Amino acid sequence: MTMQIISKNKSFGGEQGVYSHESAETGCTMRFGVYLPPAAQEGPVPVLFWLSGLTCTEDNFIVKAGAQRMAAELGVAIVAPDTSPRGLNYPGDSESYDFGVGAGFYVDATQAPWVNGYRMYSYITKELFQLVAKGFAVDPLRAGIFGHSMGGHGALTIGLKNPDLFKTISAFSPIVSPTRCPWGEKALAGYLGDDRDTWADYDATLLVKRYGWSGPALLIDQGTDDQFLETQLKPELLVAACADAKVPLDLRMQPGYDHSYFFISTFIDDHLRHHAAHL
Amino acid sequence: MTMQIISKNKSFGGEQGVYSHESAETGCTMRFGVYLPPAAQEGPVPVLFWLSGLTCTEDNFIVKAGAQRMAAELGVAIVAPDTSPRGLNYPGDSESYDFGVGAGFYVDATQAPWVNGYRMYSYITKELFQLVAKGFAVDPLRAGIFGHSMGGHGALTIGLKNPDLFKTISAFSPIVSPTRCPWGEKALAGYLGDDRDTWADYDATLLVKRYGWSGPALLIDQGTDDQFLETQLKPELLVAACADAKVPLDLRMQPGYDHSYFFISTFIDDHLRHHAAHL
Repeated sequence: MTMQIISKNKSFGGEQGVYSHESAETGCTMRFGVYLPPAAQEGPVPVLFWLSGLTCTEDNFIVKAGAQRMAAELGVAIVAPDTSPRGLNYPGDSESYDFGVGAGFYVDATQAPWVNGYRMYSYITKELFQLVAKGFAVDPLRAGIFGHSMGGHGALTIGLKNPDLFKTISAFSPIVSPTRCPWGEKALAGYLGDDRDTWADYDATLLVKRYGWSGPALLIDQGTDDQFLETQLKPELLVAACADAKVPLDLRMQPGYDHSYFFISTFIDDHLRHHAAHL
Repeated sequence: MTMQIISKNKSFGGEQGVYSHESAETGCTMRFGVYLPPAAQEGPVPVLFWLSGLTCTEDNFIVKAGAQRMAAELGVAIVAPDTSPRGLNYPGDSESYDFGVGAGFYVDATQAPWVNGYRMYSYITKELFQLVAKGFAVDPLRAGIFGHSMGGHGALTIGLKNPDLFKTISAFSPIVSPTRCPWGEKALAGYLGDDRDTWADYDATLLVKRYGWSGPALLIDQGTDDQFLETQLKPELLVAACADAKVPLDLRMQPGYDHSYFFISTFIDDHLRHHAAHL
């Protein structure tokens, strides 16, 4: 597993890098960002995986979230992968913002042609996790996961299914139940086919009941002025599921905030502190 | 003077807005950002004008600098204009990154066709200043100016010539002497013509001697790994000029930092504190 360096910039005493590698899971060149805090120069540090939302690349979080300042202060690394394979050029993969390129939904597809390459679940949990664990000054036994919107869905579902890998989970404006919203139904039908039973592997409200969660409370921030709140995000479904499953959930409804990175940057420090406190 | 709202996003309890207006100075529609801290809901707050560098629009600072957090804490507003007129469609205005669109250099051009519209000096000091003073909850008697690269040049030259408007000045990686570097020579020759005597109005190393500066020390951060340090920026020229003119200069050479917004975001809090402490 070799990596190419796309860029390196000193940031808050640490280093924001962007790298590329040839991915076996996705069958294409993938990019990802890694922020290493100053403490990484002394030894391995805890590492957080940030999963981005629809239309994003690895770049959005790196330049817009303002996470490096607090990551430097707390001494945690942050890995920010892309949101789908790129360059596979399947018919229709770039026709909509919510399916195909930029919209991998963190699943392993089973339907042609997506079955080849649209494997963001395995890409994150296996290939990228190991690449980062081996290639950077991070402690893979102290890893957390968080994300936004589609990436909040990714963080919740991947985290709940892999408590051995990820000890802490948080999300901004997550799609909590893709089996029950238009974005999710389109994506899961496309990647997994029409048998809805197979979709259950990728719905946080179902996984929380199946797997439970013995880690610290799931921290979720949700803006009350988010344009997707009622149609796509539906946090109340996760509240109910967590109550049923006796899983601790800290859902914070933030008055007046929307779905943008202005919302994320406002509360990113709280999320970083949450992860760092438990890793 | 009427404004259109392009976008508004809640950020750190305040509001990041983007607006457009028909500018008399530039003869086109101009966009600018205004961040209003929570304190602006109580009454007028100090206001900082941020001038961006080559190729930038109003957007770069807004999304990349991470300034809103500290601006909210300190209770200062930040205005971020565009860097040139757009849409005038003069021959050659989009052929290079360092002249024409995205490269107004904060001068009032005297040469055709630029004389019509490329008036960023008057746009900032007159039209935009008044528009902001009248349209937002800011105190125009407590204004400061700062910027990056070409915008650092803009902040220094505009600030030095207008101590009645701007009480505090700071810059990141400024072009300190455009009469003595390739970027500046190209721009000033293009906008002002070949008579170098006319260029002196827009060179901070000359203006500091002509006008002096009785405000707080000029704060400048400069990365030592900046790829433009030796060819374009030349901070040593300003050090010498300030020494001659007995103008206080706090030049901080920051080891390992480059010309990017990763550098700016690392030290933006210091600049905001500097301005707020003196306004």
